[in-house]
Amino acid sequence: MILEGIVTTRNANGTVNVAPMGPIVSPTMQTLRLRPFQTSTTYQNLKRGGEGVFHVTDDVLLITRAALGLLEQTPPTFAAETIAGEVLADACRWYEFRVSSLDDSQDRTEIDASVIHTGRLRDFLGFNRAKHAVIEAAILATRIHLLDANDLQRQIEALRSPVEKTAGSAEREAFALVESFISERLTAACGEST
Amino acid sequence: MILEGIVTTRNANGTVNVAPMGPIVSPTMQTLRLRPFQTSTTYQNLKRGGEGVFHVTDDVLLITRAALGLLEQTPPTFAAETIAGEVLADACRWYEFRVSSLDDSQDRTEIDASVIHTGRLRDFLGFNRAKHAVIEAAILATRIHLLDANDLQRQIEALRSPVEKTAGSAEREAFALVESFISERLTAACGEST
Repeated sequence: MILEGIVTTRNANGTVNVAPMGPIVSPTMQTLRLRPFQTSTTYQNLKRGGEGVFHVTDDVLLITRAALGLLEQTPPTFAAETIAGEVLADACRWYEFRVSSLDDSQDRTEIDASVIHTGRLRDFLGFNRAKHAVIEAAILATRIHLLDANDLQRQIEALRSPVEKTAGSAEREAFALVESFISERLTAACGEST
Repeated sequence: MILEGIVTTRNANGTVNVAPMGPIVSPTMQTLRLRPFQTSTTYQNLKRGGEGVFHVTDDVLLITRAALGLLEQTPPTFAAETIAGEVLADACRWYEFRVSSLDDSQDRTEIDASVIHTGRLRDFLGFNRAKHAVIEAAILATRIHLLDANDLQRQIEALRSPVEKTAGSAEREAFALVESFISERLTAACGEST
C-alpha cells in the first residue's frame, strides 16, 4: 500500500529538507520503499546520509506547500531520537528510518529503508473528503507538464465539489493555492507558446 | 468540517444499527451535527433513544458494505461506557454522544449532539489515495438514482487509477464491490426501462 506523507532529510549544510512522498509501506510499517527521482534533494540526501524521517500528517496545507515548492520556511521540528534528522512537530506520527538498499540504475530510484524508531504526537483526523481532494489537486498540479490543460481543469473542477461541501478553512486555503499555482503555470505556458 | 465515519445506534429490539455518516464536527470533536434522512434507521433510533456512537475508522471495506447495505452481519462490538450503545471493536476512535436537539421539520433532519465520552483503539493509517477513491466510489454508488449512467461510469473510471496504483487488498475488494453493485443496479434499471 502507498501512504502519502512527508519525508525530512538532512541537507549537506545541516539544514532540513521537507518533501512530500508516497512510499510503499509494509502492513506493520516496519519497512518503507521510497522512490524519489535522482534530481530530488531527498534522493541526494538519502544517498549521502542514509537516514531520514517519514511523517504521517493530515495537514494538507503543509503537504500542498511542500509539493508545490511554496514552503516559505521550515515548519517547527525537533531532533529525531535515533538518527541524524528532524521530526515535524505538528505531524501525527513519525517513522525514523535507515536506508537498507538503494537502486539508482533508473531515474526514479528505489530506496528500501528499515524503520528503526517511531513516535506519535496526535491523531490523524480521519476521512475528510476535502483533505483528499486537496491531495489529488496538488498531485495534478505537480503533473501539469504531463497533462492536457482542459483535462486538468476538468479534473480540478470535479475536486471542487467535495472541498466546498466538506472543508475546513485550511483545506479551502490549500485548494485555492493549488488553483492559483495551476492558473499561473497555464498562463505562463500560453505565453511561451505564442 | 465534515468527517466521514460510522454511527452505531441501538434498535428498538436491542440489536445494533451500523450506518455510514458524515457529521459536521467541531474542531475539538465536542459536538456533532448529524443529518440523517427521516427514512433512516439512525434517525428513528436517535429520535427514540437519543444516544449513539460515532466512529472514525480507516476500514473502507466496512464503510462500503455499510453504505451499500451489504453488511451481512454486525462487526464485533463492545458496550459503550457512558450510554446505551455499542462500539465497533476495530474502529480507530469512538465518540459516545447524546442528542441535544433534533429538528425533523425537513426530510433530511438536523440532529445536534454532544460528545460525552471518547476512546481510542488504534491509529488511523493516514492518506492512502485508494482508500479515498473507494469512499468517493461508494458515495457515487449510493447516488446512482440521481446520476447519469455515463457520467457515473466516467467518474468510477477516474477513481480506478489511484486504486490500481496505491491500494492494499481490502481497498481492491471494496472497489470491486462498488463496481459490481453499480453494474447490477444499472443492468436492473435498463431492464425496467425496456
